[in-house]
Amino acid sequence: MPPMPRYALKLEYDGAPFAGWQRQADQPSVQGAVEAALAALEADVPSIAAAGRTDAGVHATGQVAQCDMTRDWDPFRLSEALNWHLKPAPVAVLACARVPDDWHARFSAIERRYTYRVICRRAPLVHDRGQAWLVKQPLDVAAMRAAARHLVGLHDFTTFRAVHCQAQSPVKTLDEVTVEEIARPDAQEIRFHLRARSFLHNQVRSIVGTLERVGAGAWAPSDVATALAAADRAACGPVAPPEGLYLTGVGYPRDVFG
Amino acid sequence: MPPMPRYALKLEYDGAPFAGWQRQADQPSVQGAVEAALAALEADVPSIAAAGRTDAGVHATGQVAQCDMTRDWDPFRLSEALNWHLKPAPVAVLACARVPDDWHARFSAIERRYTYRVICRRAPLVHDRGQAWLVKQPLDVAAMRAAARHLVGLHDFTTFRAVHCQAQSPVKTLDEVTVEEIARPDAQEIRFHLRARSFLHNQVRSIVGTLERVGAGAWAPSDVATALAAADRAACGPVAPPEGLYLTGVGYPRDVFG
Repeated sequence: MPPMPRYALKLEYDGAPFAGWQRQADQPSVQGAVEAALAALEADVPSIAAAGRTDAGVHATGQVAQCDMTRDWDPFRLSEALNWHLKPAPVAVLACARVPDDWHARFSAIERRYTYRVICRRAPLVHDRGQAWLVKQPLDVAAMRAAARHLVGLHDFTTFRAVHCQAQSPVKTLDEVTVEEIARPDAQEIRFHLRARSFLHNQVRSIVGTLERVGAGAWAPSDVATALAAADRAACGPVAPPEGLYLTGVGYPRDVFG
Repeated sequence: MPPMPRYALKLEYDGAPFAGWQRQADQPSVQGAVEAALAALEADVPSIAAAGRTDAGVHATGQVAQCDMTRDWDPFRLSEALNWHLKPAPVAVLACARVPDDWHARFSAIERRYTYRVICRRAPLVHDRGQAWLVKQPLDVAAMRAAARHLVGLHDFTTFRAVHCQAQSPVKTLDEVTVEEIARPDAQEIRFHLRARSFLHNQVRSIVGTLERVGAGAWAPSDVATALAAADRAACGPVAPPEGLYLTGVGYPRDVFG
């Protein structure tokens, strides 16, 4: 039997209706939606894998998954066929590429990029409902930037790690935490951009929830350094809600989608 | 009886669930949603009026309406109370201000601003679903800009006017039609910004639908000048769908919301 051709898929999805990336017996998942679309194209498509197993409610604009097909699909036609069968689920294939058989969406990845959107205003969200965290007060961007600097680099991130996190080690290198402020007529929008080879479970939301406390003036920037040094989950601020979080991109040694 | 204090409300709404701004006996409307929230605050609040009577499916980020109350409300408390009672409708009060009794949201307005969002990509929309017009090919921005220049100024806009438009005259001055291109990793996004004292029914969507034909290469920029000069509805391109259109602002002789 010849090896099955492997494809990389760049995926966008709205996390709201899903219990997360990972397939579940009794709840809708992004993996389940993509596998159902694949099943409409070929019988017996093996389970797919993704670079980031996003939690319930978390979005993606640049998730990367892999699938193994029996037929030799033209990548563009495969993406078009998948988008057709994914409807009406809020999941879209943005790009598709043939990859080598030893390439793996998760294990070949050398970088994950996340963005967390916070919108600061009094009024409830309308067009951004479910797509950002609504914070009802303005946040001090300079203070959050000062606090974020304590987190960049190689650290034991036990403080910012879910209790049930399954990673072998809490020691990770955080390559970037930038705080972008976007001018809007109706609100202050803040986007946190985080980049690392890999993240602990809930690490981004734990960091953003803690930085929000700094922005609100409840914590001093140096309190974040103290919390990090404590290496104690109890020292973490509140975990930010899932609806503001986006997996925006995954890096590989060679650009897959060219 | 003392005069009722009048308030201006700046409103944001998602047009999708509504049959338009205007109250209808048997269908949900934005006016109906705001009036229901007002009714939760005071008995017998008179009908409200708005600067732009947006069509079914059309959004707003800067609609302006007026309401007359019996009690002397603090404007901030009125906006907070309305936002509380508007839930879960996708309508929010962004600002509220006390205005003179002779001020009128519609008749005092001297400028309306609209933005129309087009997203050009193959994949179905996910996060922008229902919030932009999906066009499956890239559009030529330079050609659309050249075409748009023919429309600015004082013209008979009969070509770009709905058959059932009730305006007394088709002659209007269009003060601005700009074509903004926004860089996105997944798509080409184009925003058309139009500004005039007032618009004819379907004028923005008729113009955008026609400019899209130019961007796609089906029309030459000069064809838009020919269509305008024809002063004939049959010369118009297809009308762009409502989900891309936003009423973004209304101008008054004096800034109401400071």
